[in-house]
Amino acid sequence: MAKYVFGVDIGGTTVKMGFLDIQGNLIDKWEIPTRKENGGENILPDVARSIEEKLTKENIDKAEVAGIGVGVPGPVDGAGVVHRAVNLGWGEFNVSEKLTSLTGIKSMAGNDANVAALGEMWKGGGQGYKNMVMVTLGTGVGGGIIIDGKMLAGSTGAGGEIGHIHIDDDETRTCGCGNKGCLEQYASATGISYLATVHKKSWSGATVLKDDLSAKAVFDGVKAGDALCKEIAEDFGEKLGKGLAVIASVVNPEAFVIGGGVSKAGEVLMGYIRPSFEKYVFHGAKGAKLLLATLGNDAGMYGAAKLVL
Amino acid sequence: MAKYVFGVDIGGTTVKMGFLDIQGNLIDKWEIPTRKENGGENILPDVARSIEEKLTKENIDKAEVAGIGVGVPGPVDGAGVVHRAVNLGWGEFNVSEKLTSLTGIKSMAGNDANVAALGEMWKGGGQGYKNMVMVTLGTGVGGGIIIDGKMLAGSTGAGGEIGHIHIDDDETRTCGCGNKGCLEQYASATGISYLATVHKKSWSGATVLKDDLSAKAVFDGVKAGDALCKEIAEDFGEKLGKGLAVIASVVNPEAFVIGGGVSKAGEVLMGYIRPSFEKYVFHGAKGAKLLLATLGNDAGMYGAAKLVL
Repeated sequence: MAKYVFGVDIGGTTVKMGFLDIQGNLIDKWEIPTRKENGGENILPDVARSIEEKLTKENIDKAEVAGIGVGVPGPVDGAGVVHRAVNLGWGEFNVSEKLTSLTGIKSMAGNDANVAALGEMWKGGGQGYKNMVMVTLGTGVGGGIIIDGKMLAGSTGAGGEIGHIHIDDDETRTCGCGNKGCLEQYASATGISYLATVHKKSWSGATVLKDDLSAKAVFDGVKAGDALCKEIAEDFGEKLGKGLAVIASVVNPEAFVIGGGVSKAGEVLMGYIRPSFEKYVFHGAKGAKLLLATLGNDAGMYGAAKLVL
Repeated sequence: MAKYVFGVDIGGTTVKMGFLDIQGNLIDKWEIPTRKENGGENILPDVARSIEEKLTKENIDKAEVAGIGVGVPGPVDGAGVVHRAVNLGWGEFNVSEKLTSLTGIKSMAGNDANVAALGEMWKGGGQGYKNMVMVTLGTGVGGGIIIDGKMLAGSTGAGGEIGHIHIDDDETRTCGCGNKGCLEQYASATGISYLATVHKKSWSGATVLKDDLSAKAVFDGVKAGDALCKEIAEDFGEKLGKGLAVIASVVNPEAFVIGGGVSKAGEVLMGYIRPSFEKYVFHGAKGAKLLLATLGNDAGMYGAAKLVL
């Protein structure tokens, strides 16, 4: 009987490895470097070797392992085929099949943001919800959608790419994706710094906001009662709430789980997002909860493990 | 062995009844009136009686019937619970359970737009696609989302309510839902008439467009090469393409299937929708096809049958 599972979260610098029991209790976690040279050809063999070493060390038979789940920083479709992961040097191939053949253990791959959503549903801020959307506010804006407890991969692995929904017709700056007016341009850490720059320019009153226009500085200012910081947060909340409202009208989730670096600001965020969300959302989808993620950088590891169970 | 299935599409005036084999071949279809008095208490008993009569007449045993699928004009969650269907006078109850107990035959209910999407996937314009979005351009704009061959009902039955995604910040008119700037305000038959009014006001050149500002008149004008009608169609396409782009970034479908009265204009529509879709969509979701629905008013009947199979 299978008792264990591996959750693997492949990043551009390191691979996070998790060894869990099938109830989702973390037994051990460690990291190995991501070797990107030669089109990233060593990455999966390195993962396989690290798993073999762990099993040998713990004296565990492969028959006791339910599987290996893998999160990949790029589009991965429902069959486990990655469609280019530029950060790893990967082109198109079936990650699930490759890792299965390397290890002899059933393996399944998904996009890292989608897998993180699964992790938050299983063991994090989204526990108890089977229909939820994870929103990761980091350098960019990532997303993962869970429908009836399962990841929505999308037909070409681009499901949940909510950072690139169009939010603002008047934008002149170009987003990293090539479009203009994407949610990511306002709601990411970078986006919040941009909003801070814009609002600070036309601000004549006193403010605690000096040279540091980071998202952290803005929300620290909000907590200190700074009027400029509140104005910036309102603009951020207006844009993000509008985006979440659109998503809610499409997939009608029970909850949004907000994670990523920006979410470290905590509950104060919700006070800025909710009014805009309620203004724009279709009444039938209004009940969605706004929750904070709780697993931080471990969400992908947990979610990858859940993916294969 | 079950050989047959019933597909029932409940509308505000009539109930469309379909009797099919489990391969989806239509054997017979008919209509019964929708009796809305007393909170619509007679509707399901009428459906049950009509089915019993059919089985008696055809001398078919209930054991030969795989089930009864029902499309309802209101939000229906994954368990078959309707959350108010104002057009029928219904409050909240479990439609699937109720019809099962009335007939002794397994029954399943879904929202009518979602069920129509399933119908187009099974036997209509979306055949061959397991991840698709049906867009119904009628008096309003409805939608149905299919993920991995299954209907996305949403946590409170509001999945696929794409007519109410926010599209335009500058709108001053209020949508039927209470919000401002919903997709439905521009892309429905009513919305197109509104756009026609606006563009005609500032038009000084010649035009075939006289008093009739219906969606049909506009697209007839487009086909006749009328410059004003083309301008109206461009505005319509800009708004609808933007909406579909947002949906594509969220659920990443293989195809959109366009149905409803407006879709009778035919392939000419796509030439106006596609440029805007490609301008706004995330590159990873760009490949989605734009197709025409083919089942017309029978989509709901087919989809309801498919729902229970």
